[in-house]
Amino acid sequence: MTDSKPHRIKPQTLRGFRDFLPDQMMAREQLIETARTVYRSYGFAPIDTPALEYAEVLLGKGGDESDKQVFRFQDQGGRDVAMRFDLTVPLARFSAQHAQQLGTPFRRYHIAPVWRGERPARGRFREFMQCDFDTIGTLSNSADIETLFVINDLLEQIGIERFTIRVNNRRVLNGLLERTGAQQQAVAILRALDKLDKIGRDAVCREMTEQSGISTQTAEQVLNMAQLNGTPDQILLQLETMLRGSETGEQGLQDLKQLFDCVAHCGWPQDRVRLDVAIARGLDYYTGTIYETVLGDLPEIGSVCSGGRYDNLADLFSAQQLPGVGASLGLDRMLAALEELGLMQTSTTPAQILITMMDPDRIPEYLQLGRRLRQRGISVEVYPEARNFGRQMKYADRRGFRCCIIAGSDEFAAQQWLLRNLADGTQTVISDAAAEAEIAQQLAATSAG
Amino acid sequence: MTDSKPHRIKPQTLRGFRDFLPDQMMAREQLIETARTVYRSYGFAPIDTPALEYAEVLLGKGGDESDKQVFRFQDQGGRDVAMRFDLTVPLARFSAQHAQQLGTPFRRYHIAPVWRGERPARGRFREFMQCDFDTIGTLSNSADIETLFVINDLLEQIGIERFTIRVNNRRVLNGLLERTGAQQQAVAILRALDKLDKIGRDAVCREMTEQSGISTQTAEQVLNMAQLNGTPDQILLQLETMLRGSETGEQGLQDLKQLFDCVAHCGWPQDRVRLDVAIARGLDYYTGTIYETVLGDLPEIGSVCSGGRYDNLADLFSAQQLPGVGASLGLDRMLAALEELGLMQTSTTPAQILITMMDPDRIPEYLQLGRRLRQRGISVEVYPEARNFGRQMKYADRRGFRCCIIAGSDEFAAQQWLLRNLADGTQTVISDAAAEAEIAQQLAATSAG
Repeated sequence: MTDSKPHRIKPQTLRGFRDFLPDQMMAREQLIETARTVYRSYGFAPIDTPALEYAEVLLGKGGDESDKQVFRFQDQGGRDVAMRFDLTVPLARFSAQHAQQLGTPFRRYHIAPVWRGERPARGRFREFMQCDFDTIGTLSNSADIETLFVINDLLEQIGIERFTIRVNNRRVLNGLLERTGAQQQAVAILRALDKLDKIGRDAVCREMTEQSGISTQTAEQVLNMAQLNGTPDQILLQLETMLRGSETGEQGLQDLKQLFDCVAHCGWPQDRVRLDVAIARGLDYYTGTIYETVLGDLPEIGSVCSGGRYDNLADLFSAQQLPGVGASLGLDRMLAALEELGLMQTSTTPAQILITMMDPDRIPEYLQLGRRLRQRGISVEVYPEARNFGRQMKYADRRGFRCCIIAGSDEFAAQQWLLRNLADGTQTVISDAAAEAEIAQQLAATSAG
Repeated sequence: MTDSKPHRIKPQTLRGFRDFLPDQMMAREQLIETARTVYRSYGFAPIDTPALEYAEVLLGKGGDESDKQVFRFQDQGGRDVAMRFDLTVPLARFSAQHAQQLGTPFRRYHIAPVWRGERPARGRFREFMQCDFDTIGTLSNSADIETLFVINDLLEQIGIERFTIRVNNRRVLNGLLERTGAQQQAVAILRALDKLDKIGRDAVCREMTEQSGISTQTAEQVLNMAQLNGTPDQILLQLETMLRGSETGEQGLQDLKQLFDCVAHCGWPQDRVRLDVAIARGLDYYTGTIYETVLGDLPEIGSVCSGGRYDNLADLFSAQQLPGVGASLGLDRMLAALEELGLMQTSTTPAQILITMMDPDRIPEYLQLGRRLRQRGISVEVYPEARNFGRQMKYADRRGFRCCIIAGSDEFAAQQWLLRNLADGTQTVISDAAAEAEIAQQLAATSAG
């Protein structure tokens, strides 16, 4: 059915959307696998929800600006549908819908793509992956502390050596605002405070007075409290004095103290966890502990893993109160960081060995050796054609195989294979009878050396 | 910001779309992980493409009927866009777009959701996962034979003991049609032939005469050839006589012979691979070897892994000729089969151990033990609240933990933990000092026993 095609379609992706070639995709799969393993080690279980939902389920929570970014349309049945723009709203709908069956506490992770029609920019895409984990249905600070542990293990397992998890508590912030008499303007003040890193103290002070109507003096007072310096213990001590008498503030402080008490037993490097009263997280819905994670060697890219505690996940969908705490790994940002830090693998093949093909009449022999090696747990690709040997070597080199196996008429006559180490060009003669054992041994030796 | 919400939104999914709860999702992840591992062991590398593409890229290949099922809309920029309905058209676009960078041969797998606005039915959904693997850019029969190997390893690794891979070759079918003088009507005839299993010989014969205009006699002749019986060797021998003089037919026969020659060396159970001249695969674009896989204990659900060779993947997008061969695992069908065959795991937690919480003042100790066990590679969940013990036990039971760890004031005073085996209720006293080693030992003992 291959007619001539005079009018070919230009092969292109939409703006803000990406293809992932093997080298990129292998790095992505590895990162996702690490996240999955760490989440699972704490008892978080996977879930998935549809890419498409009723528009009313997804909209109306984020405000007009974010609603405009949603990919929304009428389906064939005339339903008003939309593509999910995050994994939190679907989790809220999911939790309300399956509450009975799930029970509480409920720990889930969800690793899936989301879509936003934002203006594409460097590092900002219209399709990207989210890697969320949450503990739902408990108010216990134990879940907050474990959220911190998960973030730590995640970064460690990814292979990052120097990073700092900045912790704060919205109750502490609210307590401090009470002290200044500005608690009514909390949302606008905290939204401004959250920009401290980006726009600096003066600009934040200006935004606070303009957006929330507080005096410059009060704004300065808030900023002074937020910019407390020192070890967590020193800051906690100062906060204790400042928050005395504020019930909200004292509760938040209690939780932070317990968290830092646990951290003290972890044996982590100093500065692994910092108490930073200036972080507020933009989202309105956090109500307790909040987290941000910055890389020691690449702080300018911003937080790679953020989250916090919220009072009520699903109030759009259910009368049941569902408090929770969780965080999300920024997959694309983390991959960009790994690339910049030289921590990304560069191979474009998942197989270690290429069996080259010299004699097309020996296809059964080449394929059979491949099978024998795979049964031994060795990944192996068989080059499918008896092309020019130099071309096969170029292919092996470009794809990043560690070794290749060669056999022509001489080797078949002698019941042997040649194993060539592609890093140094050395060759070893391998007997066919014990090929899988000898090759496994050679591989182990080269990877140890 | 939790206002009262007088008008709650009904939490529901769209018709034909599904939520996956932890037990279902764990089974899905496990199956996907198995597919990934097998694909990788043959050197197939992962890729991904966007869920949304220009509509012109996706449409116009499948015909009006399938175009109607595509979710298609105008995006915010007025572009005519659509959600992918398979992974083959995106692969064609991808291969044409990145041909230079990819080189050939190119082996990729792609595991991702696709969307079709079909009428939902039992086992048919509007969002479902495809798990494709393909070798592109080679005409070598070696790639065809390895496709068969991959299908075999995939089913074996999934844990299926009895299955049959039915193999045929479109060239052989075309050669047979030449013999009957009906090669011009090949598409209509083969489309009818492909329904033999479903509608029976008489109905196929009727459809052949009606749709392609051949005589009943010719249709009977085609059916007689397609229903050859016997071992592969016996059928190959009969085909040799029937195809003599048809160049196409003899080429196809040559490839089948080499394939069955390789199969003979695999040591597989008899009937693992069957030569079935009646299978044609509905899709017009297959041109060489074709595959279907049926489960020995559940043949009625149809093929769980199908595919074949095609001459030209990307002619819609590129002048470059890109032949290839590949197949696709039917994830949903396979999961349904595993469930029916009792081969599905039923736990809803990825952790083996639950640490219960008796004393809320001991949160740091409970959490610290969790950390110690995880460092030993043991997945462990900490119950976040010091709730009623019976309730915690019910939770452990429902989630399917293997063991739980208990400590109240007596145990803390004695620096001990209790390890309870949830299968038989036995308890062991564990010293805190060597807790991780002792618990690892106990776990190994119970899983061996």
